[in-house]
Amino acid sequence: MVEPENPETQAIAATLMATLTVRGDTLATAESITGGLLAGFLTGVPGASAVYLGGVVSYASAVKMDLLQIPDDVIETDGVVSARCAEAMASGLRKLIGATYALSTTGVAGPESQEGKPVGTVYVGLSGPDGTRSVALDLDGDRAEIRETTCAAAISELLSALG
Amino acid sequence: MVEPENPETQAIAATLMATLTVRGDTLATAESITGGLLAGFLTGVPGASAVYLGGVVSYASAVKMDLLQIPDDVIETDGVVSARCAEAMASGLRKLIGATYALSTTGVAGPESQEGKPVGTVYVGLSGPDGTRSVALDLDGDRAEIRETTCAAAISELLSALG
Repeated sequence: MVEPENPETQAIAATLMATLTVRGDTLATAESITGGLLAGFLTGVPGASAVYLGGVVSYASAVKMDLLQIPDDVIETDGVVSARCAEAMASGLRKLIGATYALSTTGVAGPESQEGKPVGTVYVGLSGPDGTRSVALDLDGDRAEIRETTCAAAISELLSALG
Repeated sequence: MVEPENPETQAIAATLMATLTVRGDTLATAESITGGLLAGFLTGVPGASAVYLGGVVSYASAVKMDLLQIPDDVIETDGVVSARCAEAMASGLRKLIGATYALSTTGVAGPESQEGKPVGTVYVGLSGPDGTRSVALDLDGDRAEIRETTCAAAISELLSALG
């Protein structure tokens, strides 16, 4: 249950925050599977408050629908662990907070499968001025490893988009 | 910038989640200084979804006021780093999410002081069926240590309240 030491993920978080600071952009996060860990990495960087505005940890489905304004039919049709839900979380949160970019995470960390989807099924959403998209990941490892790898993937996704 | 390994904090998070599970209670978090790390510890516990509903990471003051419905005068009069703000964050979030208990954190992690308050000034708020209160902490250490100690203090505060 102990989060592993994570110098590499913390290092790319610092790179992302530095890149956003130079650009004058802001960032927000909507997290399900990572449960606050992604925000924790981002705010672990000194000076984070210049870039990171805030976020929502939406663990219960009701919190997803209410706070992030995710349409009922997204969860009813595609489920919480889906590309559509990841995209709706990112775009809903971006509007709610008013950030340049929003990152979202949803998936199955285990130990149990969810919605018939196996442990390690993960979707990362990214919403920004150019629109919203998501990437699907199929991760190995235990609960802590899957959560951390998801954080690293989300950070890398935005870094790549900023190119 | 790397979060330290934290078996003790993760262990008391597991104890808290087990206690809340047995009681049938739910939990939400409103985080400023800990920036998602507290939610990360709580959701690091397998089975967390039975107890942990969600939370808000309110890094920018605007996010505090809008999402957590903190009255302007709290921030204008007492500031973001204050007992009143910690209490308003916890009670506002508890209403927003509809959880049995809500924990909040606000303070100065450094490297810079904030609102004239030195690094290590921290307030933890707790809101529950019996009302809302806060504790003031004066912590030593670097940014990562202050953030983790604040998480441990918040978890311990609720554990103590549950007796």
